[in-house]
Amino acid sequence: MNRYAIFHRPESCYAYAVAADTLAVVLRTAKGDRFDEVEILYNNKYDFTKRRQTKAMERCATDGLYAYYRTEITLPDARFAYIFRLTQKGGTYYFSEDGLAEEYRFDLAYYTFFQFPFINMCDVPRAVEWADGAVFYQIFVDRFARGDFEKDDAYINTAWDGKIDRYSFTGGDLDGIAQKIPYLKRLGFNALYLTPIFLSASNHKYNVRDYLTVDPQFGDGERLAKLLKTAHGHGVRVVVDCVFNHCDCSHEFFKDVEEKGRQSRYYDWFLIDGERPSAEKCNYACFADCTYMPKWNTGNAEVRRYLTDIALEYLKIGFDGLRLDVADEISHEMWRQLRRGVKEKYPEALILGEIWHDNEHWLRGDQLDGVMNYKLQKLLVDYFARGTVNARTAADRMNAILMANTEIANANSLSFLDNHDTPRFLRLAGGNKDRLLCALCAAVMFPNMPCVFYGTEIPLDGGGDPDCRQPFDWEFRNRTEEYAEKFRAVIGIKGRCRFKGARAEITAENGMLKIVRQTDGGSVAAYFNTTGAAKKSGVDGNIVFALNFEDGKILNDGAVVFENIKN
Amino acid sequence: MNRYAIFHRPESCYAYAVAADTLAVVLRTAKGDRFDEVEILYNNKYDFTKRRQTKAMERCATDGLYAYYRTEITLPDARFAYIFRLTQKGGTYYFSEDGLAEEYRFDLAYYTFFQFPFINMCDVPRAVEWADGAVFYQIFVDRFARGDFEKDDAYINTAWDGKIDRYSFTGGDLDGIAQKIPYLKRLGFNALYLTPIFLSASNHKYNVRDYLTVDPQFGDGERLAKLLKTAHGHGVRVVVDCVFNHCDCSHEFFKDVEEKGRQSRYYDWFLIDGERPSAEKCNYACFADCTYMPKWNTGNAEVRRYLTDIALEYLKIGFDGLRLDVADEISHEMWRQLRRGVKEKYPEALILGEIWHDNEHWLRGDQLDGVMNYKLQKLLVDYFARGTVNARTAADRMNAILMANTEIANANSLSFLDNHDTPRFLRLAGGNKDRLLCALCAAVMFPNMPCVFYGTEIPLDGGGDPDCRQPFDWEFRNRTEEYAEKFRAVIGIKGRCRFKGARAEITAENGMLKIVRQTDGGSVAAYFNTTGAAKKSGVDGNIVFALNFEDGKILNDGAVVFENIKN
Repeated sequence: MNRYAIFHRPESCYAYAVAADTLAVVLRTAKGDRFDEVEILYNNKYDFTKRRQTKAMERCATDGLYAYYRTEITLPDARFAYIFRLTQKGGTYYFSEDGLAEEYRFDLAYYTFFQFPFINMCDVPRAVEWADGAVFYQIFVDRFARGDFEKDDAYINTAWDGKIDRYSFTGGDLDGIAQKIPYLKRLGFNALYLTPIFLSASNHKYNVRDYLTVDPQFGDGERLAKLLKTAHGHGVRVVVDCVFNHCDCSHEFFKDVEEKGRQSRYYDWFLIDGERPSAEKCNYACFADCTYMPKWNTGNAEVRRYLTDIALEYLKIGFDGLRLDVADEISHEMWRQLRRGVKEKYPEALILGEIWHDNEHWLRGDQLDGVMNYKLQKLLVDYFARGTVNARTAADRMNAILMANTEIANANSLSFLDNHDTPRFLRLAGGNKDRLLCALCAAVMFPNMPCVFYGTEIPLDGGGDPDCRQPFDWEFRNRTEEYAEKFRAVIGIKGRCRFKGARAEITAENGMLKIVRQTDGGSVAAYFNTTGAAKKSGVDGNIVFALNFEDGKILNDGAVVFENIKN
Repeated sequence: MNRYAIFHRPESCYAYAVAADTLAVVLRTAKGDRFDEVEILYNNKYDFTKRRQTKAMERCATDGLYAYYRTEITLPDARFAYIFRLTQKGGTYYFSEDGLAEEYRFDLAYYTFFQFPFINMCDVPRAVEWADGAVFYQIFVDRFARGDFEKDDAYINTAWDGKIDRYSFTGGDLDGIAQKIPYLKRLGFNALYLTPIFLSASNHKYNVRDYLTVDPQFGDGERLAKLLKTAHGHGVRVVVDCVFNHCDCSHEFFKDVEEKGRQSRYYDWFLIDGERPSAEKCNYACFADCTYMPKWNTGNAEVRRYLTDIALEYLKIGFDGLRLDVADEISHEMWRQLRRGVKEKYPEALILGEIWHDNEHWLRGDQLDGVMNYKLQKLLVDYFARGTVNARTAADRMNAILMANTEIANANSLSFLDNHDTPRFLRLAGGNKDRLLCALCAAVMFPNMPCVFYGTEIPLDGGGDPDCRQPFDWEFRNRTEEYAEKFRAVIGIKGRCRFKGARAEITAENGMLKIVRQTDGGSVAAYFNTTGAAKKSGVDGNIVFALNFEDGKILNDGAVVFENIKN
């Protein structure tokens, strides 16, 4: 047995509460190790030395190196002690906090069992309920749609169908979004994520001058209220981008510090090395190397209160959630304070963070609900667009991503192909729309909330920033009926299938990537064949939804077949 | 290379800030794998794709399965991106968030590097400075010393030298402790940890009726103030036991609920299933299965405020720290709130938790400073008392314990041999005092704060509760001069050697356990020979402190040798 591979840790994605009396438990072993039985022995921690219950664990996933065994255990009083028992070739092994051994002293177990000492419900993250069926559409506001033709548009420097650069303003606004809500609803979207909309000199508005004034380029408070009302009227939720890592150097507090130096009451609101901030000397913390974006000092409790109050104001206006920009560079203390403030008043507000890397540290219930799943995005690009990994590796990596977080964190995270910070997926896929649709289908099947970047439905093309931020083509010149139909079918999967739980069985089968989700009535499977190597093989009558492509063409005449698999 | 063994995780004991610009980084590999080089490649996360610095990592510890490589890296702007490079038999391997590979795409690194996105100092735990030199003495108050002979002593039901049982009261009190402060100071102790002292019907007082009234058996507010003043006058800190998991059923709030049921304003302060609590029906959460100890509902913000205010009151009275009873069964939210309240006013207050198991989840800077190191206690018993593990295993386990937490958490945790909840170490060692002294020396050498249970210095004997809680023998009938001298020498190690940093080099050498600590002038080594197998071998002139014993006798005529090893 591979002793190096065996791993378990309480209070992590390996053991977490799924109800007031129930614990989900995962044990990791080497993928190559096969066991006759993997069992958990458990009881109330005060009775464990005397007697235990036994439950078999199921092999639920494998990645490149490891296999994961999972079960759920329930106790009337929620104070769990447990160890694992593995049977292999007639030998029996016990795995406890003391490690792997052939014998286990139950009389000394009080020192060595794994424990989940008490399920304190205030520590258990609650899934945001509406996230369950959410299908997101991300809008880069200046480029999506213009609705207000009365506004002062002297700021617009680029025609809607002109060539954009980093400094282009094309006129998209909140009225435009409001007008397109029925269109988005028809496509199958029920949630929007808007890039920042508050006062800022840039087209992207990630450098905020005033957090509570809607940028006049986009509208005003009244227009925002109207947009939210329209969206809600159509059952569409709206999440707003909160740029709390930094502000713009024109923010009044930073200007005060520039003017008064250490004498400013806002001096400690930033991280300045010296008497006063100097962009030339670069003597203060900022975002990346952008001196026009001074970083907030969230070690200062006043700053945390200021930013939390802004978040609360957004939710009061009617936003349904917050997307937190550069969430990983901001203090954990900031997110804890924000979450406490937000969830007390708005328990159903979704708190999403931009974290490109290992993120479990933010997803333990005290900070964020979910993240933008960049690891999945990279994998979708590698497998579906670049073709640099095969189905086996794709399945391995998807499983590794899935097993690295709790179900609730997965349910509240975003799966996506691209966004305003990456090249368009279509570009990375060499313009192949079928690859795009397949990847989109995988993003929908993955146990996250899918999020589609504006224009993917027509589809817009584009390389890295600013090219990925082209204005929407409302004349739909590149959209074929065939593509539009397939797009709607893919986006519609979640609504039609109503997946149960944030888990998936992800495997490679006959050279194809296969994702299976449970539904109320049975299960739904998607097969993805990107190489042609597995043409039709193994794809039998049980296919519920299948997109197979070869040579850039979808097989089955592009048919999208929906049938229920009965278990 | 063993791919299953390689592990790293940012924001854990594998990567943590040790200064505003410096990160401690640890990489784990298989113990059997030997590398020509283990290096870290690092830079500011925004420049990492362009260029990197390289630093060699040192093999700093091994346990049963793994080897640990460590280094510290510094960047002017504290936004770290890094990967590891391992060279073995001429082959080069890269280890990133993407796993182990023979090639690494630096151009795509933004997705795959490890990151510590920003050192936000408000998230970085500050070591409690006085903990550095602290040597603790734990007092079970009813049994240590009686000083007040004027008090109403009708409650005393057992003579000081009588036979005690679970219900014995023998008369120990705060005045008694105050009078013995000079005695304890002379022994080498500079910190006390007192079991609970507030109003409670039991002798142990872990079931509190009133958190702010000193139990009249022990004294009153004035006597407590006197004790604290005396202690502080001698440079002795005092930590008090806080029983916040549960109270006694006679607590006025619980009585109110018993009387008024759901109508009580305190109904939600407990976890009750039904109209009103009933000990008979056992319909409320309690400690273990003790219905007279109802558990607080720390999911209720009012309860958290109530308990935090009590903690603040203790610190206001003059206590220097809090020992939190049953810390692991209480909500994390409770500890976060308590820490915020406490550290804002009393940054040097020590927050210690009773956690017998995996504890890293509490030691990330937002909850506790340290824990009682039960894992070490079990190992000290296994190696020095029971002899069930050899020197190699002892070193392995000590390293595993050490590497499972950050240096700051280790520095602020307690090493101990026994306490009021375990049999006396002397009993487990079959009465062998040399084994006791050796174990004590190991506890002092380990990078924790040593904590000695009252009476170990004479030494008291005793099995499990209540036998381990015998009254102190102030006639010192069992204490020999030889034992007393060695005891003082062992307790004095920390004061004489002034260890630098909370790290240790722990190995097995010639069948002996060896613990080396760095000091200002060089290093200090302790060799422990519990089997006689390694008699004198390998023990050369470089011994700074050595206790070797064979057949229950200390060798070198029991000499304790202090010399500095120059590096």
